[in-house]
Amino acid sequence: MKRTALMTEVSRNWDEFHATDISQKAPFFSREGRLYDCLFSQQFDRKLLDHLFTVADRLRQVTGTPEGAAAVARLLAHKRAMLYFVQPSTRTFLSFLNACHILGLKTSEIRDTTTSSEIKGESPEDTVRTFSSYVDIIIMRHPAPGFVEKTAWVMNRAKRPVPVVNGGSGKDQHPTQALLDVYTLHRSLPGGVDDKRLVMVGDLKRGRTVRSLSYLMKNYRGVSLTFVSPPELRMEADILEFLRRHDIPYQETEDFASAMIGADAIYMTRIQDEHDVRGESRGVDYAKFHFKAEHLKVIKPSAIIMHPLPRRHEIELSVDEDDRAVYWRQERNGMWARAALIAYIFGVDGDIPEPGR
Amino acid sequence: MKRTALMTEVSRNWDEFHATDISQKAPFFSREGRLYDCLFSQQFDRKLLDHLFTVADRLRQVTGTPEGAAAVARLLAHKRAMLYFVQPSTRTFLSFLNACHILGLKTSEIRDTTTSSEIKGESPEDTVRTFSSYVDIIIMRHPAPGFVEKTAWVMNRAKRPVPVVNGGSGKDQHPTQALLDVYTLHRSLPGGVDDKRLVMVGDLKRGRTVRSLSYLMKNYRGVSLTFVSPPELRMEADILEFLRRHDIPYQETEDFASAMIGADAIYMTRIQDEHDVRGESRGVDYAKFHFKAEHLKVIKPSAIIMHPLPRRHEIELSVDEDDRAVYWRQERNGMWARAALIAYIFGVDGDIPEPGR
Amino acid sequence: MKRTALMTEVSRNWDEFHATDISQKAPFFSREGRLYDCLFSQQFDRKLLDHLFTVADRLRQVTGTPEGAAAVARLLAHKRAMLYFVQPSTRTFLSFLNACHILGLKTSEIRDTTTSSEIKGESPEDTVRTFSSYVDIIIMRHPAPGFVEKTAWVMNRAKRPVPVVNGGSGKDQHPTQALLDVYTLHRSLPGGVDDKRLVMVGDLKRGRTVRSLSYLMKNYRGVSLTFVSPPELRMEADILEFLRRHDIPYQETEDFASAMIGADAIYMTRIQDEHDVRGESRGVDYAKFHFKAEHLKVIKPSAIIMHPLPRRHEIELSVDEDDRAVYWRQERNGMWARAALIAYIFGVDGDIPEPGR
Repeated sequence: MKRTALMTEVSRNWDEFHATDISQKAPFFSREGRLYDCLFSQQFDRKLLDHLFTVADRLRQVTGTPEGAAAVARLLAHKRAMLYFVQPSTRTFLSFLNACHILGLKTSEIRDTTTSSEIKGESPEDTVRTFSSYVDIIIMRHPAPGFVEKTAWVMNRAKRPVPVVNGGSGKDQHPTQALLDVYTLHRSLPGGVDDKRLVMVGDLKRGRTVRSLSYLMKNYRGVSLTFVSPPELRMEADILEFLRRHDIPYQETEDFASAMIGADAIYMTRIQDEHDVRGESRGVDYAKFHFKAEHLKVIKPSAIIMHPLPRRHEIELSVDEDDRAVYWRQERNGMWARAALIAYIFGVDGDIPEPGR
Repeated sequence: MKRTALMTEVSRNWDEFHATDISQKAPFFSREGRLYDCLFSQQFDRKLLDHLFTVADRLRQVTGTPEGAAAVARLLAHKRAMLYFVQPSTRTFLSFLNACHILGLKTSEIRDTTTSSEIKGESPEDTVRTFSSYVDIIIMRHPAPGFVEKTAWVMNRAKRPVPVVNGGSGKDQHPTQALLDVYTLHRSLPGGVDDKRLVMVGDLKRGRTVRSLSYLMKNYRGVSLTFVSPPELRMEADILEFLRRHDIPYQETEDFASAMIGADAIYMTRIQDEHDVRGESRGVDYAKFHFKAEHLKVIKPSAIIMHPLPRRHEIELSVDEDDRAVYWRQERNGMWARAALIAYIFGVDGDIPEPGR
Repeated sequence: MKRTALMTEVSRNWDEFHATDISQKAPFFSREGRLYDCLFSQQFDRKLLDHLFTVADRLRQVTGTPEGAAAVARLLAHKRAMLYFVQPSTRTFLSFLNACHILGLKTSEIRDTTTSSEIKGESPEDTVRTFSSYVDIIIMRHPAPGFVEKTAWVMNRAKRPVPVVNGGSGKDQHPTQALLDVYTLHRSLPGGVDDKRLVMVGDLKRGRTVRSLSYLMKNYRGVSLTFVSPPELRMEADILEFLRRHDIPYQETEDFASAMIGADAIYMTRIQDEHDVRGESRGVDYAKFHFKAEHLKVIKPSAIIMHPLPRRHEIELSVDEDDRAVYWRQERNGMWARAALIAYIFGVDGDIPEPGR
């Protein structure tokens, strides 16, 4: 079935298309059974996750030597990427930028819309299409929910489509953050993610990362979740309903001290008070949900401590020196997971040379 | 004759030099019969245009394979470019940046004068000379008319000159836009530009692109022009006088519907109300000068529709899907034409490998 | 001795460490007898200076051919640099950026903290550590004195340290400026720096460059210094004391006309009125400390005129055309000296190919 036909079947109209369930519209963002636009964390299934982790491991290993790094930097030296990041994000931006550089992609950056010709009255769709004229992939972060998806939708209808990767859109989706989180679990937990107990802590109501991570757990066997938060910031009902539907056991508690004891992974988050409407998080006693140096004595020797960063005071600084604190590695995993994803989208994931050659 | 002697003959003083006719000062911006600084669209003659188009076609074709792209990216891998764009321009900026990347040039960007040491009281000439210290070519966009030319003038007198390419200076010159427009005509019109009828539509009074394009028509045989605009925004007298002098037939009309029928190329432009002094374009009924989907039925099957972009409402969105709408290709042509120009300036235009090798 | 042990010996606490004398803490910023973090001009001894100048000369020479440039661009093609410049500085920024490009390093830029996740409440130390996650070296300019040193201190305690290069921190240190200044003396003075008379002119009180340069003179034999300044802007007592301690003869004067006559090098500086607290430099008659075209007749035929740039009116424009005016070359020397330093830090200074191959 041709892509335009496929789209017509879903909807020719953007608003209608956008409102469609992700599972129905996902095929529109794939080509020949391969992810083309990376927009939703729901696009990752177990097989794809495992494959991307293998590719990420391989990239990391091969680039350990100058020769290997040079070979990897030739993989996409003929391609050009556009990083369109109009929402402040140093971390994700740098991670993607350097992922591109590892693969040899040349990069252009748009980080400020005021330098853009949007000021001449151009529509956002035309602006995006202009960017795509010069490059082979668009990596995009945008404050408006749905805008990245719309870009991919527009591009797929153009005569010269280029893949679109979501670097964070509004409050709804940040699929590569979910990817790097699962990659970190996979890489740091002995035996991988299956059968592990995950404890998520903090502002679960508004934390995009804990929501996506919960979704992705449906790809693993025997996982159980514990949600630790102040009552005001509990995980939303839609996620809990999703977990019940997929038979993923979970519990909710305010008692962090007890919950951490049996944890295989402790996923800390900061309070997202930039999303406060009326300062509702100001009264929350968040100190009970901090990870302190003294806690290192009570958690499992094999447990890992994660954090999507940036942190404020959720994790005491001296915890950084413990081997179980993996958040800095988690951050770096993001670069490798993103490099793996980009290599996969361009179909060069099979061309990475053997390590040690 | 040495360049300093050549300059002295024209003038040693900037103001006097600047006021000199372009035809007289053009040699100062060439070296060994080859364009060195690209400042004015008047520097393009038929021979150079045809050559650059061949180079652009070749670049496009060769880079279609990873091997070809890699070979082209080695052409100028030993050179460094500075993009000094202190006037907002995403489109031209990205086009030049990616043209550099195609040729392997390393790039530095200055896009905001407030990060510059200009704030320490340095003269603009010293600042530009500083930039040139680190690079091999300067590509410049500047709001002040004449500033890019002055930069080239200063650089040509320095001990370590580097070529300067005009990416748009004030309202006066934007030579690479003219280049890409003619390249698009050349590439999309069957049999090329000779003997064709061009219809230019919109704000002809203040549109830099339609002015330059009119100038360049003197390089072609048998071209006739039709200027379609509201009476307030007619083509300026200097261009009309130029056309008469070069025996290029033209007509002026407000009747777009009739004019489009015989057109080989329809060049649409937006109203440049940012140049309004007292809101003079506010009262103009511009709707009569829009290209609508219904017009697709009346224009020639071989006609092409161009637009320098960004557009507002001059062209209905659904027109994009017609094969005769070439403005998105026109935009992409800009990248190839600029890559060709840069390759030519550095004298590597003869080193592009054969396609298919 | 392990680095952590070494640090503990100096101090485990930042404030205490920071207050320690540079000679004591310098080993902490070296690895296997090789400079690792470049933070203070005091880290340069004669042997290292001579070595870096040889490397810089070699880089400059080898990159004169496309083949040589390509070979040099492979030296660090597997490495990535972060340029973190949150204080305006076009000149130093571009110089470092292009030094990286010469060596093939891929670069990421942070030039504006408002695009950073600092706004989410992250500590500066965490932010810097984040940057280091993605790259192999950090080149940093920061307005706060000591911040660059603190970054290097933090990084050296991290599990994945990366070297830190000081691109200017507060008013205290700008070691690569000192490096390029001495490189220019070495390169432009017949027979090198030994036994030469240096005349430093202008705002000696607040000029970071003249202070560093004075320090570095202890590495050379037979150098004598003349400080020419208005009484309000004389060289500070700490430098004079340092010179006496190292038996470096100096004199202070307001009589520029006499002082320039015997000079081998005349180092001009601008008035640093951005450091005025109460407009104290407003009343200074600075014209007596300007270098004018007429002075070219009285200075030695072999003398050189330097300036760290940007200049205001300290040097008359027409002086630029005299061969003894080396400030534009001095600026370009900065790029080569920085490239040499980076090559040295990564230990590839021995891998630069022979010229002419």
